[in-house]
Amino acid sequence: MAEQSVDRVADQDVDAYVLDVAQRARAASRDIAAADTGARSRALKAIAEAIDGARAQLAEANAEDLFAANSAAIDQPLIDRLELNAGGIDQMIEGVLQVDSLPDPVGAISDLSYRPSGIQVGRMRVPLGVIGIIYESRPNVTADAASLCLKSGNACILRGGSEAIHSNIVIADCVRAGIEAAGLNPDIVQLFQTTDRAAVGALLKQNAYVDVIVPRGGRGLIERITNESTIPVIKHLDGICHVYVHRGADLDMALEIAVNSKTEKYAVCNAAETLLIDADVADEFLPRAAERFATAGVTLKGCEVTQQRVGSEPATEDDWYAEFLGPTLAVRVVNGLDEAIAHINRYGSAHTDTIVSDDYAATRRFLTEVDSASVMVNVSTQFADGFEFGLGAEIGISTDKLHARGPVGLEGLTTQKYVVFGNGEIRKR
Amino acid sequence: MAEQSVDRVADQDVDAYVLDVAQRARAASRDIAAADTGARSRALKAIAEAIDGARAQLAEANAEDLFAANSAAIDQPLIDRLELNAGGIDQMIEGVLQVDSLPDPVGAISDLSYRPSGIQVGRMRVPLGVIGIIYESRPNVTADAASLCLKSGNACILRGGSEAIHSNIVIADCVRAGIEAAGLNPDIVQLFQTTDRAAVGALLKQNAYVDVIVPRGGRGLIERITNESTIPVIKHLDGICHVYVHRGADLDMALEIAVNSKTEKYAVCNAAETLLIDADVADEFLPRAAERFATAGVTLKGCEVTQQRVGSEPATEDDWYAEFLGPTLAVRVVNGLDEAIAHINRYGSAHTDTIVSDDYAATRRFLTEVDSASVMVNVSTQFADGFEFGLGAEIGISTDKLHARGPVGLEGLTTQKYVVFGNGEIRKR
Repeated sequence: MAEQSVDRVADQDVDAYVLDVAQRARAASRDIAAADTGARSRALKAIAEAIDGARAQLAEANAEDLFAANSAAIDQPLIDRLELNAGGIDQMIEGVLQVDSLPDPVGAISDLSYRPSGIQVGRMRVPLGVIGIIYESRPNVTADAASLCLKSGNACILRGGSEAIHSNIVIADCVRAGIEAAGLNPDIVQLFQTTDRAAVGALLKQNAYVDVIVPRGGRGLIERITNESTIPVIKHLDGICHVYVHRGADLDMALEIAVNSKTEKYAVCNAAETLLIDADVADEFLPRAAERFATAGVTLKGCEVTQQRVGSEPATEDDWYAEFLGPTLAVRVVNGLDEAIAHINRYGSAHTDTIVSDDYAATRRFLTEVDSASVMVNVSTQFADGFEFGLGAEIGISTDKLHARGPVGLEGLTTQKYVVFGNGEIRKR
Repeated sequence: MAEQSVDRVADQDVDAYVLDVAQRARAASRDIAAADTGARSRALKAIAEAIDGARAQLAEANAEDLFAANSAAIDQPLIDRLELNAGGIDQMIEGVLQVDSLPDPVGAISDLSYRPSGIQVGRMRVPLGVIGIIYESRPNVTADAASLCLKSGNACILRGGSEAIHSNIVIADCVRAGIEAAGLNPDIVQLFQTTDRAAVGALLKQNAYVDVIVPRGGRGLIERITNESTIPVIKHLDGICHVYVHRGADLDMALEIAVNSKTEKYAVCNAAETLLIDADVADEFLPRAAERFATAGVTLKGCEVTQQRVGSEPATEDDWYAEFLGPTLAVRVVNGLDEAIAHINRYGSAHTDTIVSDDYAATRRFLTEVDSASVMVNVSTQFADGFEFGLGAEIGISTDKLHARGPVGLEGLTTQKYVVFGNGEIRKR
């Protein structure tokens, strides 16, 4: 792991390179699927050790990435995400060991039962096969994603952000060294050794060898991937989350939940973007909310009632569809549960929505009829993530309905096949 | 339900018609998702009654379809599938009532548990939303598919084969009448009132309103749909199924399983297409198998060893990839388990594969390492279907890995969302 050249692949060879990577990944997926829990655990522990032993190289590589990013006058938030200091390396190592400590999802057989024909049918949880992960600046994703794939018995192909290439190469080399130390095929984890964007396009066509693509990044990246990919994509689009203050709410609780859902962190997908308030409680609730949000520095964009009651800026039709990801909140007064549910199902992004209410029937209907990945009662939307939900770790949050919905942990990286046990049964139609 | 015009939609209006159907379906999906178990059950019973009351119209409409098919000199197997006699109508009614009798999958909450933050997190099974089903000649699919979607709380858009349009219209009118009789929105089930193929293309672009497409038909139909669709597709490609006779097999059992897997029905996706035999038992097993298959009228295409031992025709490389769907079987002698698994994972279609063996370790490895939707031990591949597996009914068999794998029943037509219960918890990072 001495000096690395940034781009190990000649331009003209990109298609051949990607095909080779994909074929190696498919072959390696057989090895990791057949590896037992112990072997996968030894590999994860060896990866953590290898990263710990490569702190100096990693610091050097990260400095190189940061120098290039600064020279290229890249935005400060992106540079912040790129930086990997000693604490960040500690967290990365801890993350790998934490994934190792999760229960092994692979091989679990459920619902095994006898059928009238005499056969016994069940479902076995098995790896998906080969997972392609395309992500942006944070280099720690290289270790996180590799660990989750390895733990769940999958091979993976990683394509990190070009600005993090030096850091990513060092981390990926540690990952492969750890896998080899456990006696497994290092091609179980492959990082693209090129920053050529054509390699991403070529990867998205490898449906013969790659089972699923997980993009992590902004909407632009995800839309491009979804449009180009011939491989199924587990995708996460907008987080347009709602807090609905029902007339049956404890208004003190509602206020804390609304403020926390919006302000605990702004630039996260589970932050609230729209506050819905029942007309019956708007007169009492709106001024209190307006005061708290003003103190927090949040600008309100309101419906007509909101404008009249607390003098907010007006909300346009587009504001109901907006993911502000900052200190702006759309506010609408609604006439009861039906209108609230209709608003959420129309304008929301099916990510996370919460009702504040002590009314039994209203909370039951909200849970059933709001068509979102996470539907909550009397808690902050900011809880919607894999760690808080108990998945141990997450590879992303899905706003799709098929396969994985909401935070995606180890289970989302697996599938179930039917297993059938018999004693010579044959079928007679 | 008097005389129907075959095509109720003018050519130039196809796009607008399909958009209208898709939007109605999305709206109706909210109604059916909110309908309780009792309402859905009443609708299914009313549908069965309506079909029973429409036997005369249905016979007339089916005669019209059959007359047109005969005039158009359509293939006999297709005409056979098109015919709906009194027994077929009985079966269709029974099918609807059988779906009604299945447990309701909707609303089940699983894995509900408290997290350290105090929130309680679980997963609720919910309908997918709007399902588009594109199928070929059998008119009974209209009632089957509609019942499964209704039971699982989904709205559906049905596009049947043009040759069955008269029969399908009568059945769909019965379905809608039954839904209305139960006080529900009839747009929960909509059948395309046109045979224009452009309508299929338009449907495949309605990703704003349709959640999943289920094609039922030949490989050509499914490939066209997969390539054109912007909506996720639950697809079923080939069934290239294997019977592997391990050296630890009871050869009498192996013979019955091999013969049944191939011959019980030829034109089904779960029929065996390739027989793999361990070299250690080939001398004993091959002549017995050759004799039985000759009696059954099955032509063998063998590897070199098979040709030498029993004088079969030679198998070409393409034959290992072939779905014969008829009385032809490819036969290969392999050197043990590794070679058998490698053959299946390379040439198979990940549908259904069975090992015959009494060897504990071999059966365990086969179950784990064969990467197919249904992996079996000591039973015939012909058991791979929703009824035999205990799903009650199936909408199809998926050879995909994501979302639904193997026979797809009611559960495959649903998804899970996270539900979170709290008491005012807010998040502190």
